[in-house]
Amino acid sequence: MTKSVTVGDLARALDARCWGDETLKVTGAAEPAATEPAGAEGGIIALAMADKYARALKPGSMAILAEGMQPENYGLKAAIFAPRPRVLMAGLTREFDTGPDIAPGIHGSAIIDPSASVAGDAAIGPFVVIGADVRIGAGARIGAHVSIGRGSVIGEQALIHPGARIAHGVRAGDRLILQSGAVIGGDGFSFVTPEESGIEEIRRTLGAREGIKAQHWTRIHSLGGVDLGDDVEIGANATIDRGTIRATTVGSGTKIDNLVQLGHNVVVGQDCLLCGHVGIAGSSRIGNRVVLAGQCGVSDNIEIGDDVIAGGATKIFSRVPAGRVILGHPAVKMDTQMEIQKAMRRLPRFAQQLAKLQETVTRLLEKG
Amino acid sequence: MTKSVTVGDLARALDARCWGDETLKVTGAAEPAATEPAGAEGGIIALAMADKYARALKPGSMAILAEGMQPENYGLKAAIFAPRPRVLMAGLTREFDTGPDIAPGIHGSAIIDPSASVAGDAAIGPFVVIGADVRIGAGARIGAHVSIGRGSVIGEQALIHPGARIAHGVRAGDRLILQSGAVIGGDGFSFVTPEESGIEEIRRTLGAREGIKAQHWTRIHSLGGVDLGDDVEIGANATIDRGTIRATTVGSGTKIDNLVQLGHNVVVGQDCLLCGHVGIAGSSRIGNRVVLAGQCGVSDNIEIGDDVIAGGATKIFSRVPAGRVILGHPAVKMDTQMEIQKAMRRLPRFAQQLAKLQETVTRLLEKG
Amino acid sequence: MTKSVTVGDLARALDARCWGDETLKVTGAAEPAATEPAGAEGGIIALAMADKYARALKPGSMAILAEGMQPENYGLKAAIFAPRPRVLMAGLTREFDTGPDIAPGIHGSAIIDPSASVAGDAAIGPFVVIGADVRIGAGARIGAHVSIGRGSVIGEQALIHPGARIAHGVRAGDRLILQSGAVIGGDGFSFVTPEESGIEEIRRTLGAREGIKAQHWTRIHSLGGVDLGDDVEIGANATIDRGTIRATTVGSGTKIDNLVQLGHNVVVGQDCLLCGHVGIAGSSRIGNRVVLAGQCGVSDNIEIGDDVIAGGATKIFSRVPAGRVILGHPAVKMDTQMEIQKAMRRLPRFAQQLAKLQETVTRLLEKG
Repeated sequence: MTKSVTVGDLARALDARCWGDETLKVTGAAEPAATEPAGAEGGIIALAMADKYARALKPGSMAILAEGMQPENYGLKAAIFAPRPRVLMAGLTREFDTGPDIAPGIHGSAIIDPSASVAGDAAIGPFVVIGADVRIGAGARIGAHVSIGRGSVIGEQALIHPGARIAHGVRAGDRLILQSGAVIGGDGFSFVTPEESGIEEIRRTLGAREGIKAQHWTRIHSLGGVDLGDDVEIGANATIDRGTIRATTVGSGTKIDNLVQLGHNVVVGQDCLLCGHVGIAGSSRIGNRVVLAGQCGVSDNIEIGDDVIAGGATKIFSRVPAGRVILGHPAVKMDTQMEIQKAMRRLPRFAQQLAKLQETVTRLLEKG
Repeated sequence: MTKSVTVGDLARALDARCWGDETLKVTGAAEPAATEPAGAEGGIIALAMADKYARALKPGSMAILAEGMQPENYGLKAAIFAPRPRVLMAGLTREFDTGPDIAPGIHGSAIIDPSASVAGDAAIGPFVVIGADVRIGAGARIGAHVSIGRGSVIGEQALIHPGARIAHGVRAGDRLILQSGAVIGGDGFSFVTPEESGIEEIRRTLGAREGIKAQHWTRIHSLGGVDLGDDVEIGANATIDRGTIRATTVGSGTKIDNLVQLGHNVVVGQDCLLCGHVGIAGSSRIGNRVVLAGQCGVSDNIEIGDDVIAGGATKIFSRVPAGRVILGHPAVKMDTQMEIQKAMRRLPRFAQQLAKLQETVTRLLEKG
Repeated sequence: MTKSVTVGDLARALDARCWGDETLKVTGAAEPAATEPAGAEGGIIALAMADKYARALKPGSMAILAEGMQPENYGLKAAIFAPRPRVLMAGLTREFDTGPDIAPGIHGSAIIDPSASVAGDAAIGPFVVIGADVRIGAGARIGAHVSIGRGSVIGEQALIHPGARIAHGVRAGDRLILQSGAVIGGDGFSFVTPEESGIEEIRRTLGAREGIKAQHWTRIHSLGGVDLGDDVEIGANATIDRGTIRATTVGSGTKIDNLVQLGHNVVVGQDCLLCGHVGIAGSSRIGNRVVLAGQCGVSDNIEIGDDVIAGGATKIFSRVPAGRVILGHPAVKMDTQMEIQKAMRRLPRFAQQLAKLQETVTRLLEKG
């Protein structure tokens, strides 16, 4: 599975400048300490964007350097200069990512409903189960133990890792990436009591409760599916519930990390990043280009505007206007939060100062 | 798989009043914008509980309206009037939920231990693995790739979605619903060090540490299983660990959302709602009808009384008396939390006011 | 699968003192209320480390008691005295843990690449898929529906529960325990925009944003794998992402609970405990013997020193020196947090006191 490319071609593919012997073969990328002198079979190229990293390079090896660094100082045979390092990382790692092995064709053990339509060039792994009326687009690669329910539609060039779950009635655009264990289209968590429930009561009374009584939960079933746009990626063991009567929706270009939970009827816009453990409760709407860092939470039925950025573990209980940068539990503007945190650390001291001041003023009053 | 029912029969099933042509066939439920004029084959019924929604209805279609709305205003052919909309939603969605496809009978690829007992009418999907002495009740439907370990007992009418995991020694009542990827009966997270561990030390000293020393963790194995009552639902990728020497227990009627974690020996009462990402640490006890909103956390070995309601991301470190409504990190009464949050936002201003006041008083003192 | 051992041998195995009839057979461990008089076939031994528990023991049964308790008081036939109860629990539960059933040998339905090397005594369950060049060590037990990707290496005595996922390029030491649904080696969550992204901007400006513009995310692929040391245990539905160009690493003896998320390039030291729902963002480094309680979060690119202990739901945004005990959101020293929380609860009262004081001082000033 090893791939190789000349360092000159690699530089051109990355739209970057090459130095030294352009004909050397590159077989992968690694850390500076893992390099070896490049021989006839070529070798690894290392990322060494600063002198402190580059010093670990082995003489005779290849590296990607920041502009202004001197390849001769490290005895390199070839180098590529990175104008914007993280952008170059994207190109470089794509070049050498072999991904999971999913053999071409349909594995003999896969069970595919006769009414399903699978593109001729799709690769379907062992023990895959594909339901009635499913449609799988061209170039799809589907790993072992994946299940896809009745009527779901997967666009072109999908990569579905082993053990991911797609229920019935899910529609995904092109270039979907689904990591292992992700569950798309589980039933929504939506229940009702015959009479007003305790939750409804405290929402109405802002916390007060009159008579607490036994009550059982009746299920509201989920008839809506899940709609995913193009270029959506969903992380390992993330869960996206189906909608109640319309689809839960994720816009094109949005990336969702591991263990994220999207409730029923949630609408997420385009080009968002939702990081690990983010939870969005039912029926909330997230705008475009929203970034929620790890462990953020969003209450149900609220709206987050376009371009909102929330720092780690921000807990959002009410609507957030477009463009705002927020932080904290509960969420406030990031700069306000910074001031609150500073003040909180001084809070025990405040208490002392206040007590002392009260004492002083009392004495002043007595004197007066 | 499309189902149909006359709008008159549907209204009667929902215990609601019907208006217009009761003989029209209803084939599903959707949003107002998705309606079409109902023809000979019938059509979709839309939920339109307020005028602003109902305006999107197509003339000639069918809708569920709130009492007091006028079907003629929207040119409807038939309507159902909803006395308590969310309760009606439960009946309506149950009527049209086709659920996952699991063909009747036992799929030829399923591997079932000869000592297991599976009810004659159970539906067992492809690649299911059922261990020794397992008992599966009448009407159970078990999706693809599910595994059920030795000696586990599943009651009647269970619905187990593809890829759910039930370990050995799990007992579930009737009408269990298990979403994909849920893991019931993983080993508890319980470890011990030969001498006092750092955790035990800081619990004893409330944070102080004397001598830090290297220590390895020895596993306490989990001999207890998991007991689930009747009418329990467990969400996608949720995890419930087995107990140490007695079972981890979930009471009848309790609903557990996606990605929830229940530690070993936890006891959850009846008719609780545990929302997405809730985590309950080992040996804690949760009463009946407790509602924990998304991302709540409960420390180990504590007790939450009956009818407690905790708002989103509430972190509970100590016991909570019955009936209390709590919020915050750490949890306090909801109204106290509201005051704390108000004061926190004013905290930076307090700091300034306090400093200025100190200055003023100092000047007063000097004058005096 | 029932196992039995004499109570005398059990005591010796546990390095503890035995009292009474040492020849009685023990067939399992349970709670005091579950005991029965031990007969010819032996019986259950109960854990009853205090008188209040021991009172539930049935006469004629067996129990593990704390030193100083009197077996005669409960009519026991035999007893074991526990010097350090939790340490004894480890030995006792190990003795009776039968674990999941995985039949010896390779199940006929498993699909194993011809280039893979599986130790002769390994047990491989139904529908397991093992990729090219995988190596599985001696004594491994691999449950149903597990998949292991190309080139991964699993040491000796591994126990991999049903449905766990190991991607390509994962290396694990000996005695690995993987609970169901764990995903090792998913792709990292790493994206870049062609120009500076909003996240990069607010990190530079500490929250300020100038021009918000549309931007798409380009994927940085994950070429690194995951390296796990010896004696690592990973919980149900936990996720560990692969590194970008070097491996994500977990040190020997570290235990990881359910639903924990480790981002790409994370390095976790030895003998750590990471409890349920902990999330560690990309490229952060965790020292040795670190304990993170449930729902803790660690930002990306920071360092947590050796022997740090963080209480439940602690959110860590910056580096933590070795040995520190921390708590809160954001994390501060545990004792500081205790003072902050006390002051926060008094905060609404502070506000009133401050306002009153200001009034008094204003009056004093007017008088002066």
